Amino acid sequence: MWGIHLNRESEIPLKRQLYQSLSERIMAGILKAGESLPSTRALAQELNVSRNTVNEAYDMLVTEGYAETRQGAATRIAGGLVLDKRPQSKAQRLETPPIPSFLADFRTGQPDLRQFPRYAWQRLSHQALGEMPVDLLGYTGPQGLPRLRREIAAWLMRSKGLVVKPEDIFITAGATQALHLIADLLYDNGKEILVEDPCNIEMIQTFIGKGYAVKPVPVDEYGLQTDGLAAKYGSPVYVTPSHQFPLGAILPAARRAALIRFARHNGSFVIEDDYDSEFRYVGEPASPLYAMDPDRVIYIGTFSKVLFPALRIGYVILPRELQSAWSRLRTYTDVQNPPFEQAVLAQFLHTRKFDRHIVKMSKLYRERRQVLLDSLQAGFGEKLRTWGDAAGLHLAVEFPGQTFDEHFRQEARRNRIRVTPVEYHCVRKGRHNSKLLFGYGHLEPDQIREGILLLKAFLHENGK
Amino acid sequence: MWGIHLNRESEIPLKRQLYQSLSERIMAGILKAGESLPSTRALAQELNVSRNTVNEAYDMLVTEGYAETRQGAATRIAGGLVLDKRPQSKAQRLETPPIPSFLADFRTGQPDLRQFPRYAWQRLSHQALGEMPVDLLGYTGPQGLPRLRREIAAWLMRSKGLVVKPEDIFITAGATQALHLIADLLYDNGKEILVEDPCNIEMIQTFIGKGYAVKPVPVDEYGLQTDGLAAKYGSPVYVTPSHQFPLGAILPAARRAALIRFARHNGSFVIEDDYDSEFRYVGEPASPLYAMDPDRVIYIGTFSKVLFPALRIGYVILPRELQSAWSRLRTYTDVQNPPFEQAVLAQFLHTRKFDRHIVKMSKLYRERRQVLLDSLQAGFGEKLRTWGDAAGLHLAVEFPGQTFDEHFRQEARRNRIRVTPVEYHCVRKGRHNSKLLFGYGHLEPDQIREGILLLKAFLHENGK
Repeated sequence: MWGIHLNRESEIPLKRQLYQSLSERIMAGILKAGESLPSTRALAQELNVSRNTVNEAYDMLVTEGYAETRQGAATRIAGGLVLDKRPQSKAQRLETPPIPSFLADFRTGQPDLRQFPRYAWQRLSHQALGEMPVDLLGYTGPQGLPRLRREIAAWLMRSKGLVVKPEDIFITAGATQALHLIADLLYDNGKEILVEDPCNIEMIQTFIGKGYAVKPVPVDEYGLQTDGLAAKYGSPVYVTPSHQFPLGAILPAARRAALIRFARHNGSFVIEDDYDSEFRYVGEPASPLYAMDPDRVIYIGTFSKVLFPALRIGYVILPRELQSAWSRLRTYTDVQNPPFEQAVLAQFLHTRKFDRHIVKMSKLYRERRQVLLDSLQAGFGEKLRTWGDAAGLHLAVEFPGQTFDEHFRQEARRNRIRVTPVEYHCVRKGRHNSKLLFGYGHLEPDQIREGILLLKAFLHENGK
Repeated sequence: MWGIHLNRESEIPLKRQLYQSLSERIMAGILKAGESLPSTRALAQELNVSRNTVNEAYDMLVTEGYAETRQGAATRIAGGLVLDKRPQSKAQRLETPPIPSFLADFRTGQPDLRQFPRYAWQRLSHQALGEMPVDLLGYTGPQGLPRLRREIAAWLMRSKGLVVKPEDIFITAGATQALHLIADLLYDNGKEILVEDPCNIEMIQTFIGKGYAVKPVPVDEYGLQTDGLAAKYGSPVYVTPSHQFPLGAILPAARRAALIRFARHNGSFVIEDDYDSEFRYVGEPASPLYAMDPDRVIYIGTFSKVLFPALRIGYVILPRELQSAWSRLRTYTDVQNPPFEQAVLAQFLHTRKFDRHIVKMSKLYRERRQVLLDSLQAGFGEKLRTWGDAAGLHLAVEFPGQTFDEHFRQEARRNRIRVTPVEYHCVRKGRHNSKLLFGYGHLEPDQIREGILLLKAFLHENGK
């Protein structure tokens, strides 16, 4: 009847299949408004199903308003239901491009995931799940688990001498979300942001996407040049003072003081992104700018680089005047972080497994950095100059006289070499085009050595 | 010397304490630009620490630009460092108000967390962590785990007859984040949104926060009134067709068709929030509106109500034309969901533990709904009328002749009774002020009975 065919192998119950067949035919105008549906007995016989199946399908039609029924009368098709069936758009579905397998992969910001102490984490996780109070399965507020905030405060104290109250720490779903929320939070302060140039161009996309004007401030070998700082009143400044991304400087104290003076004078907040200062290979991690003025600096910390990116836990330390607005904003953005990873991370910090992991990884990364430096020296000798402090997971290298642009980047990719020109991270192009970035944290020494050889051959082929 | 006191009990290493003491005195102008620091030998003796400690503190000062050193000369204080020490703002820190303990807590949208199969979840979680490929600890893209998207597609098929490809499903950090991203995604379509009135007033805050004009469309006992739909070209419409929040209607097919016709004509997307249709106590869950036009409907699904809110996993099914922009936006919002809960949830769906949990909870919630109906009947008899379909976790009840406003809500809270007037969720006030919402999913039968008795007494005292 009406070409209805039911599939007895399907996971969709017969009653729903029948309901769907009938409702489609009603919407197509094949079954017309006011027409009676056949009796349940007749249709059940026709389709070789139980009367109950037909009854239930009819109930669904009535419940959803496709049909109407009145005491003692037949079930009739409702009116106003005809809707053109449109073929589904042929618009391009999102195709995830296959990730090319690189022969040399110097991407930045990638820790060595193989070194992550999975077993210890798994054990803590099992324990945390078992011990978690049932309340934590419900909504527990936008600020994050108190225990985790206490552990972060304790760790900031013992590792960086930073005195901060757990009450001023707000957990986020990573540093990217922190910036996204800050962009929303400060949206009414003139819609302009000052950034280091070069800076992490991916991280500022959230500001660009919201229509902020991006005002680049040049970076030299010491970091942000604070001499000519000028902006609309209230415009925030986004900086990486502990390890400038990508050039690697530790911002000197005089410039820090100048930046804070500017922020006070200009009614600005300074957004301090401390993305990887845990890994410093000579001496102690640099001190956070936050300590200079907790009322003007928003500090962003992350665990993506120390532990693993997919953890999606970061935090901000917020000036008090922003805290209420932040909590409201986070509530209506994505409510809160899930509790499990927070509980596990708190325990990971508490047991100092975190500190030990940093010590272990620092040793490993320091060795890899040295392998990279040696390989570059062997491959290019005097023809290069390295930039920045001995820290983090990547190195900026200048090849005087060379030019590395987007074309070069793409061409290298086609040759299965991933290496990022500093130019890629520049807002104003043309000032850093002789520099390349080498991420090394995730690479074994042999991968580094072979990668540099491949790069050298590639450069040679391209007349560089 | 200069009043420096080192605390040997502190977790902060002595070298960092010394560095901090000196840098503070430099910034305060006590140690002046150009002055020499004492020899390491002299200062070490003075403070009774090793010369190495002083050396390391001096290194930190030099590294961070507080002091300068030249071959063979003493270490001198750098210039430009004086910064007024300001007392930290006395601005109100965010105080989390203590959650009052309610004697009767009819809040909406709360599943019974005690019933969640924690042990099974914990076991799957342990397994997922152990089996997780190391790649998943890194960034894996904004769309979510393919395996979870396949399991969601399979479940939508078997439970709602919805045919959807995993490629069209995008995992989110809950339904709130889905709306937040949609608000950003459609920001340029006129900044106006049509909402059901009443609607979930918390959920639309993200639109309000971004400056959208909210245009209310009245809801009657059948749901959204589609007769007078009018809007700026492209304005989205936010609806809950499977179980109108808060009044409970299933939107009839004729109105669904009218809504889709409107969306096509007006270049609008319809945002379908299917927040709790899994729990329907007579007959089958209503069919998603999405099936009527996958090019015009954005479907939002969530696991907060079926499993637990803190899970923070939801999903959207996106029209293809929005998919690229969505992926970009999610990347710059918070990158992606963490992988663990996704993997566990995928397995929970795959093993059909999810389906069984829904069956179990439906039975429980149906019983509690009946207890609520019986208690209301016993307490108020003919003086009330219930609204909506037998579904979900709450019930809308009309008390003809009564008025329940914000003052009533607050007064009830002070009496430790949490019950929400429909008025609270109204955009235009005054049209639904005789109705109250009773969340019952999270309450034991005795809590429901006692709660209604308490409410009755409270109403009586207040002359209602």
